[in-house]
Amino acid sequence: MKLESTPQGVVAGSIPLFAGHPSHDLLPIAGVRRAAASLWGGGQVTRLFDYGDEQGNPQLIEFLVERLNRVERLGISRENLMIIGGATGGVDLICDQLTQAGDVVLVDAPSYRDALHIFRDRHLDVRDVAIDDGGAIVGDMARSLRALADAGRAPKFYYVVPNFQNPSGITMPEARRRAIIELSRQYGFAIVEDDVYNDIRFCDALPPSFYALAAGENVLRMGTYSKTLAPGLRIGWLLASAARIADFVSSGVLKMGGGANPFTAAIVAEYCRSGEWEAHLAWLRGQYRQRRDIAQSALDAAMPPGVSYSRPNGGYFIWLHLPPTVDIADLAERARWENVYFAPGTGFYVDPEQGARHLRLSFSFVPIDDLRAGIEILGRLIREMSA
Amino acid sequence: MKLESTPQGVVAGSIPLFAGHPSHDLLPIAGVRRAAASLWGGGQVTRLFDYGDEQGNPQLIEFLVERLNRVERLGISRENLMIIGGATGGVDLICDQLTQAGDVVLVDAPSYRDALHIFRDRHLDVRDVAIDDGGAIVGDMARSLRALADAGRAPKFYYVVPNFQNPSGITMPEARRRAIIELSRQYGFAIVEDDVYNDIRFCDALPPSFYALAAGENVLRMGTYSKTLAPGLRIGWLLASAARIADFVSSGVLKMGGGANPFTAAIVAEYCRSGEWEAHLAWLRGQYRQRRDIAQSALDAAMPPGVSYSRPNGGYFIWLHLPPTVDIADLAERARWENVYFAPGTGFYVDPEQGARHLRLSFSFVPIDDLRAGIEILGRLIREMSA
Repeated sequence: MKLESTPQGVVAGSIPLFAGHPSHDLLPIAGVRRAAASLWGGGQVTRLFDYGDEQGNPQLIEFLVERLNRVERLGISRENLMIIGGATGGVDLICDQLTQAGDVVLVDAPSYRDALHIFRDRHLDVRDVAIDDGGAIVGDMARSLRALADAGRAPKFYYVVPNFQNPSGITMPEARRRAIIELSRQYGFAIVEDDVYNDIRFCDALPPSFYALAAGENVLRMGTYSKTLAPGLRIGWLLASAARIADFVSSGVLKMGGGANPFTAAIVAEYCRSGEWEAHLAWLRGQYRQRRDIAQSALDAAMPPGVSYSRPNGGYFIWLHLPPTVDIADLAERARWENVYFAPGTGFYVDPEQGARHLRLSFSFVPIDDLRAGIEILGRLIREMSA
Repeated sequence: MKLESTPQGVVAGSIPLFAGHPSHDLLPIAGVRRAAASLWGGGQVTRLFDYGDEQGNPQLIEFLVERLNRVERLGISRENLMIIGGATGGVDLICDQLTQAGDVVLVDAPSYRDALHIFRDRHLDVRDVAIDDGGAIVGDMARSLRALADAGRAPKFYYVVPNFQNPSGITMPEARRRAIIELSRQYGFAIVEDDVYNDIRFCDALPPSFYALAAGENVLRMGTYSKTLAPGLRIGWLLASAARIADFVSSGVLKMGGGANPFTAAIVAEYCRSGEWEAHLAWLRGQYRQRRDIAQSALDAAMPPGVSYSRPNGGYFIWLHLPPTVDIADLAERARWENVYFAPGTGFYVDPEQGARHLRLSFSFVPIDDLRAGIEILGRLIREMSA
């Protein structure tokens, strides 16, 4: 199976194991088409074309509030939620509103590469906290906060992907979330909870979100349709306190352009209200779970002793730890000669050198045969380099 | 004629003369529907749903480069243009990439309210330059620049709406543009040219853009489909030097979320390539010109001596200067009682007090009968307050 078209950053004919995109055969194109078709004839069709409410499409807000309250037993109201242009739009807005150049923010080591990139673009002072298999190590975070406090400083926020972290695949357990909320209260920083993989889970339940555990206090939580519907629609949501949502909604960017993407938000609202999204989600989880299983079996078969890797219960990614004999730049170069591309660990750290023994594989995007073939090729190259 | 639905910020049943939206009867809904329909069946349909190229939809870039070169006799190539989420997305990106909190930026007095709001949100040090009927007064700008230089500072950019300025309706003549480009070279600041009303002109030609006059050097010029197609699609474009576009395209926000709104950008590209946009533009100019004429006649009939107002050759807005007897807050309050809303001048100045004698009317949005009725009501109220 070959890709129909070559998306952003992908070399035609290659095996792009770096790509955190949904596979093209998992996009519910027909369902979105039906949703769009049912809007054209309606009396509210002009609403798709005009500037939208700053808070976002009201029907979509209503749908999400009801769903989050039902599925997660939250007690939010519509004042707690706004529509954003994907999680990216949320991170950008949060940085606009909460930070200035030079402000400190905390991240995990490793953390999501493109979020680090945004923080660097904004000249933020990014401090990282080591992780173990439960995410950020609370003692290390506390030490870092004390040292900052001694210097008269405090972070503006801690940025975290709490479930199936990008890149490590780790889900942080409840106790650790509670401990970090305690630190956030003590030191007065916000928690930016980038929860974009929540709905791509292969397990029954997830720990309660930071947002739920803190009763919404000083937590900004993002969700997205990019992983469970289609990234090209650019629609996500942001949960926060009513006061913070009101602040954000009255920001200059929202006043100038109106709310996030009225045209696609209306289509997403219609798609979700039809019930198609829930059915699609159930199917999608099975598809991604199968891809995770295939990747895991291929890794078990292909990787030599000395290579370890995560076994994530959801999300898009597997994180590999290489033996010291394997140079990551060298491996990337050899893989490129065989048309295989992965995300080197170096991009996921404030100090790139810390990632020199890691790489991230995505099982979400490439055709299944390519997933197997790509991992076999990487296994062979690593065996050759370990010999 | 009543509005089908009530958009963002509009009180139902009111006459919102503040609203800088396209009138709902001017939205080419059927044409956009045809463009979308023709995409669903195509082999590239997955491209609508996936993350997009960071620079934006390639077909739309190609269309715009060809059109701008043809219509304006520019010599740009595709390296000079990227797609943005409306002009708002451009202003946000430019601020991300070019400024930090505390940086100086120059604006006109008055200037576009929501842009001022964005600059304030980012804690920029906003300095304004007085305008006359040709826009920013060069001598005043030069004095301000010298004073800044004496304090060891220089602005990062000068933000200007060069054609049919929001709110004043003024189009800056070529000589003044050239003089400001000279100052920008002397003092090393960029020119952010927010040219969103370019295509809504009722005259034959406009002066060459800052971008053209400076041969693209240190000018960032924005255009948008929000005024000539539909704001809800959130699609615009940014012209700049190839080096700057390359910088912007490799920013964290673009890397994280991909290029601007792939789904709607593909629809807009299809709509434009079909030739419908040019035909729609020609028709639209006639429609807005008629609305401008109606507003102007209504003002001539309704306003007492002592009230003066702009006679713009394009755009959406008329700017009124009131006699000293009329208190703007009092007028707004009385108008509200009669269900008429306008944009008080105070919002368009760094120092709100400077706008206390002004108000902005939009002729773009309300039904034509309401446009006449709203202006008659305002005229009566102002006459009563002037008596």
